[in-house]
Amino acid sequence: MEMDRSVPRRGLYIGRFQPFHLGHVEAIRRLLKKVDELVIIIGSAQRSHDLDNPFTAGERYVMVRDALNEMDIPSARYHLLPVPDSPMHSVWVAQIESYAPPFQVVYSNDPLTRRLFKELRITVESVEFYRREVFSATEVRRRMLSGQNWRELVPPSVAEDVDRISGVERLKELAMTDSPFGRKNSELTTM
Amino acid sequence: MEMDRSVPRRGLYIGRFQPFHLGHVEAIRRLLKKVDELVIIIGSAQRSHDLDNPFTAGERYVMVRDALNEMDIPSARYHLLPVPDSPMHSVWVAQIESYAPPFQVVYSNDPLTRRLFKELRITVESVEFYRREVFSATEVRRRMLSGQNWRELVPPSVAEDVDRISGVERLKELAMTDSPFGRKNSELTTM
Amino acid sequence: MEMDRSVPRRGLYIGRFQPFHLGHVEAIRRLLKKVDELVIIIGSAQRSHDLDNPFTAGERYVMVRDALNEMDIPSARYHLLPVPDSPMHSVWVAQIESYAPPFQVVYSNDPLTRRLFKELRITVESVEFYRREVFSATEVRRRMLSGQNWRELVPPSVAEDVDRISGVERLKELAMTDSPFGRKNSELTTM
Amino acid sequence: MEMDRSVPRRGLYIGRFQPFHLGHVEAIRRLLKKVDELVIIIGSAQRSHDLDNPFTAGERYVMVRDALNEMDIPSARYHLLPVPDSPMHSVWVAQIESYAPPFQVVYSNDPLTRRLFKELRITVESVEFYRREVFSATEVRRRMLSGQNWRELVPPSVAEDVDRISGVERLKELAMTDSPFGRKNSELTTM
Amino acid sequence: MEMDRSVPRRGLYIGRFQPFHLGHVEAIRRLLKKVDELVIIIGSAQRSHDLDNPFTAGERYVMVRDALNEMDIPSARYHLLPVPDSPMHSVWVAQIESYAPPFQVVYSNDPLTRRLFKELRITVESVEFYRREVFSATEVRRRMLSGQNWRELVPPSVAEDVDRISGVERLKELAMTDSPFGRKNSELTTM
Amino acid sequence: MEMDRSVPRRGLYIGRFQPFHLGHVEAIRRLLKKVDELVIIIGSAQRSHDLDNPFTAGERYVMVRDALNEMDIPSARYHLLPVPDSPMHSVWVAQIESYAPPFQVVYSNDPLTRRLFKELRITVESVEFYRREVFSATEVRRRMLSGQNWRELVPPSVAEDVDRISGVERLKELAMTDSPFGRKNSELTTM
Repeated sequence: MEMDRSVPRRGLYIGRFQPFHLGHVEAIRRLLKKVDELVIIIGSAQRSHDLDNPFTAGERYVMVRDALNEMDIPSARYHLLPVPDSPMHSVWVAQIESYAPPFQVVYSNDPLTRRLFKELRITVESVEFYRREVFSATEVRRRMLSGQNWRELVPPSVAEDVDRISGVERLKELAMTDSPFGRKNSELTTM
Repeated sequence: MEMDRSVPRRGLYIGRFQPFHLGHVEAIRRLLKKVDELVIIIGSAQRSHDLDNPFTAGERYVMVRDALNEMDIPSARYHLLPVPDSPMHSVWVAQIESYAPPFQVVYSNDPLTRRLFKELRITVESVEFYRREVFSATEVRRRMLSGQNWRELVPPSVAEDVDRISGVERLKELAMTDSPFGRKNSELTTM
Repeated sequence: MEMDRSVPRRGLYIGRFQPFHLGHVEAIRRLLKKVDELVIIIGSAQRSHDLDNPFTAGERYVMVRDALNEMDIPSARYHLLPVPDSPMHSVWVAQIESYAPPFQVVYSNDPLTRRLFKELRITVESVEFYRREVFSATEVRRRMLSGQNWRELVPPSVAEDVDRISGVERLKELAMTDSPFGRKNSELTTM
Repeated sequence: MEMDRSVPRRGLYIGRFQPFHLGHVEAIRRLLKKVDELVIIIGSAQRSHDLDNPFTAGERYVMVRDALNEMDIPSARYHLLPVPDSPMHSVWVAQIESYAPPFQVVYSNDPLTRRLFKELRITVESVEFYRREVFSATEVRRRMLSGQNWRELVPPSVAEDVDRISGVERLKELAMTDSPFGRKNSELTTM
Repeated sequence: MEMDRSVPRRGLYIGRFQPFHLGHVEAIRRLLKKVDELVIIIGSAQRSHDLDNPFTAGERYVMVRDALNEMDIPSARYHLLPVPDSPMHSVWVAQIESYAPPFQVVYSNDPLTRRLFKELRITVESVEFYRREVFSATEVRRRMLSGQNWRELVPPSVAEDVDRISGVERLKELAMTDSPFGRKNSELTTM
Repeated sequence: MEMDRSVPRRGLYIGRFQPFHLGHVEAIRRLLKKVDELVIIIGSAQRSHDLDNPFTAGERYVMVRDALNEMDIPSARYHLLPVPDSPMHSVWVAQIESYAPPFQVVYSNDPLTRRLFKELRITVESVEFYRREVFSATEVRRRMLSGQNWRELVPPSVAEDVDRISGVERLKELAMTDSPFGRKNSELTTM
């Protein structure tokens, strides 16, 4: 990791963004007050079309970018990067470092993320939660499946993005499957 | 996908066939009335020796072939192809297309299969179910494990194939394990 | 597999050792009375930092080695080898054979392990269990998580090894996560 | 491997068939005199669109099937199965056995194939070569690239199959590339 | 691929950018006159530290971004996305589509890239070359290794980026190795 | 990496050992004077049966162990661990750390190995070469293939180990192949 102070101070923020919601927006707004640039990692980039991961990396990229545009956050302030999962937890941090520009601090509340970075002596700080009980991707997907109001949990542009790709319909179909290629992406691991 | 009409009209039918049962037989009989040739994909070909996937691709190949022979369905009418899972749902259709002869229509009732092919503008049609409540591989495996009559759910030749490889004994052993290499094939993902 | 009798008689013993406990110790002590040398496989070597597999292969290697040293079992009597999982159950035995020195017998009580080796005509014998109800890695991890006495289930040196890497703290953090890189290593499959 | 003599005597024949040519045809004709059924493996099934492997598994499947039909070899006499490569040479035979119906003998002249099967105590016999200096896939591809007569080396139906997919044009384009996704499939290994 | 005309017209441009040079800059400048937004794919994202691919995806990301900033190309005009290679050429296009925002046209001069996209009925157009004989990444790396002037072939900011990570020194060391983990990344394929 | 000084000072030494020869023996003898314990990594553990990597990890394990026994180096002084390659150079060091006991210094003369560890701030020291022009695995394999005296380059026990597995015969067969599963292991990458 670069420590050169002539480069901007960068923070790393990781999510799966299945989908991107107002909690993510608020976290990014706050983090951008602390760092010059934010490296936003779209995690589990290889996954899509399963119940916990309905959207492709490209679809999620569009959601994040559209939402940040809508909020007038200049794209010069952040880096938005899809990164596939690693087959070993123990090399995951090295893989993130290989895909991302250098960063000086990781923002995360997740105990495992925090630990993996800390075990490699990388600085980890917390993110203030913004009404986590509703602003969670699990809650958004739950509402999508049960026909409840999920739109109030995401930026307007994300609702449009989801509609454009018939995202709710896709999620409902994923909930019905019991097919050979299954409900979990992990069941499709090759060979 | 080839659209050349000088080639026969081919339909694609996908299953894991764990094991091949009378519901599959009936579906294939009906589909062969609609198309010149049927491409039968043995899905999740890499899996075996787990509770949901007890049989190898080779064992399943033998079951399907023996059963179709027994029914006097000429092997010239179908193509029987093992295909391993793909690590990404989003490339799975491309992988099927790469392994199979060209086809013009996919027969499936599974919502996810239907959606993945439809997202790529491939024609999908339904398969009429034949007493799905009993003719399901899950039910066959349940009966095998609980000592109930599973033979009435499969073609006679498949019962023989299962016996030849001591298939019921294998399934029961898989149900007892809690070993390092686990009950789920997915726990054996490499690296 | 070598059958040459000028080489020592070797037995194979496989475990994940998450962590290594007194039941493993007792099994190894008994097996060393039956064979000249024991090949001890650290299975699922690629896994770590998940609830069922908290420790890395290297950490588990240290635990086994330290415990056997503590028991005055000379390292000349055994071979201690990490082996990653295979993506196909059906090739797992071939992979073990490729990583290990030649062996003549596999010691295992696990029904699936026994079956996979037997299907390849390899001799399998049972291991006498030593108070299996408490001496199990699952029980050790359960006690670690619930703050109960796990130390009495492992050799003193293993307790020290776990403490040195703050292993209990790691396990508790793994239990709290719901992060993108998840609680299960299998969710990190590449691509 | 099954040894049950109530099942037919089966031989295994492996090729990449890039493309299928008259030498393969002749070998299969001779082998079908020795066994009841022939298991024909389309090796390196995952490869296509590189200089040594221009055709997909599905395209090669069509070539073999069309050629054997043209020769009036009944499809009941053979099994035609795509099998992807294995990441370890040492487990490759186990993978073939997992994908294929049971077989009693392997026909191959290739020293490495012969050795890998022999190391596992599987019977290997030779295939009589039919004018190997011209009937080789390497020679066919060389002629395709240099504009020479490749059609005389393949069955008429294969020439048609190659034409239908503009196969020569594809090969020539592969020869011109120096792109990021390269001339060799191996450069596209994931992760 | 989305065809919705309410979204901007997007072009796709793929490179490995090992390293990013003035030819890439010129191509991007021209392409931005033809489309609303350019999706720039950093191909072979998983590769680094080999002779043909010395730089990590993260390092290449920084090079492209810094160079486009230096040219006053607003980051709102482009999307910069690392994508790992696919293990099958035949699914590579599907993988690109899964990682990228929807696009309507691919710009490429590479025969293989052109073919793979065309086989899936995606529009492909050419890129005008800008003095290709010198502005090639191969030439830049050659000059780096031989101590010649490579700086004149890259944007000033890229020269700084390379210097900051001691890139030339790394490349020279890669040229000297004959180590177990080799000169080619492909020799490190897992398992 | 552990820095705890109550644990022994350990050095890391990496090789493919295809095969293990007198140069390796001499290096290990010298390194054992500098550290309490040596962690010896059998690299590229997944490879075998190709021209550059004829021997399996298990066969190489036996060679190293037998040779060190023959030299009266107690097995308590070293750790001998097979580690498969990583699909990304940039995570290879993290993978080694995950498989091995903690170490404080890496001994290597290879420029790439040295660099990868140094980029992660791990101490690297040189190994004195012992007549490198003849004591190289490449030279041993060359002599094996050409029928020259390779035995004088390896410990007597290694010559016996090679003979027991008909190693020279295997290498010569590998040199003759041009089969589907090729001369290079990398051509067998899965999927």
